Amino acid sequence: MKYCPECGAPVELRLPQDDNRERHVCTVCATIHYHNPKLIVGAIPEWEDGRILLCRRAIEPRHGLWTLPAGFMENGETTAEAAARETLEEANARVDITHLYSMYNLPYINQVHLLFRARLLDLDFSPGVESLDVALFEERDIPWDTLAFRPVKYTLQRFFSDRRSGSFPFFNADLNAPGHTHDGHA
Amino acid sequence: MKYCPECGAPVELRLPQDDNRERHVCTVCATIHYHNPKLIVGAIPEWEDGRILLCRRAIEPRHGLWTLPAGFMENGETTAEAAARETLEEANARVDITHLYSMYNLPYINQVHLLFRARLLDLDFSPGVESLDVALFEERDIPWDTLAFRPVKYTLQRFFSDRRSGSFPFFNADLNAPGHTHDGHA
Repeated sequence: MKYCPECGAPVELRLPQDDNRERHVCTVCATIHYHNPKLIVGAIPEWEDGRILLCRRAIEPRHGLWTLPAGFMENGETTAEAAARETLEEANARVDITHLYSMYNLPYINQVHLLFRARLLDLDFSPGVESLDVALFEERDIPWDTLAFRPVKYTLQRFFSDRRSGSFPFFNADLNAPGHTHDGHA
Repeated sequence: MKYCPECGAPVELRLPQDDNRERHVCTVCATIHYHNPKLIVGAIPEWEDGRILLCRRAIEPRHGLWTLPAGFMENGETTAEAAARETLEEANARVDITHLYSMYNLPYINQVHLLFRARLLDLDFSPGVESLDVALFEERDIPWDTLAFRPVKYTLQRFFSDRRSGSFPFFNADLNAPGHTHDGHA
């Protein structure tokens, strides 16, 4: 941020009174502009035979790799609505969002990822504009080596393990930047 | 938003290509500026005798009312770190954050609230700059009529009920604007 979104004047980093970190503050109208983490919300759409719906990405980052339908939560919606909307947009698929299943913190990119278990309601799906392909996968056919994101990979691993045990407790974990020694994921 | 934070030129609402909602787009540099929900994260600090730590607010909104320590998540931290930081800032109290307990969606103000169960580690607490008072409450002494926020009230009600049953399953609910007929909370 270089300019004030409210008045267009330059901003500078300042420590506001009673605050403990520098903020972008307008040099003219004195508005303090805060920057906060974003929520990425998605679904684990499960068809009645146990297969999982994945999308192959038509956009960067990770063009060509597979992922669960997920994306940035929008203003004016709930987290479950966001997960259903992303599934509709990326896979033209209708789901019933059931339970929050995983939360991943990615503090190095200021993101929190939430993935919900979901029931896929019909087989009338197709690639949305951000997807090259959409398909249902049995566990043994999941493209583990070409999954786009770690929260998706780890969540799917845990999902299939939990499904064998018949219990899906909510879990959360922290991820550091790729290449970091400890990524907080058990 | 009236001006582009990157170049200072006016922005206008436009529907970007391949998007389905209007965004603030810069009329000069064409940068698209997205606005997303914010996370409010807090703790339910429980002392070893079962009492819960509450803070009386020294700031608006809800000046003078009681709340759990909570606030806007900051960039560069995890949700659990945010809950511990808010507890330290508002109550000068140290906690061990244990489990995510509740998630409230407040889509009418573009917020998602997360509250964690937490173990209060010592009794050396005091009001932070945003608090008038900090105190431990048994269930029967909770100031139910002067609690600041619905997610705090509903979470505390559920917490004490769950504690009697010995099980604290994660739950989530949606809240509409106060006064709305159905607020999604059972």
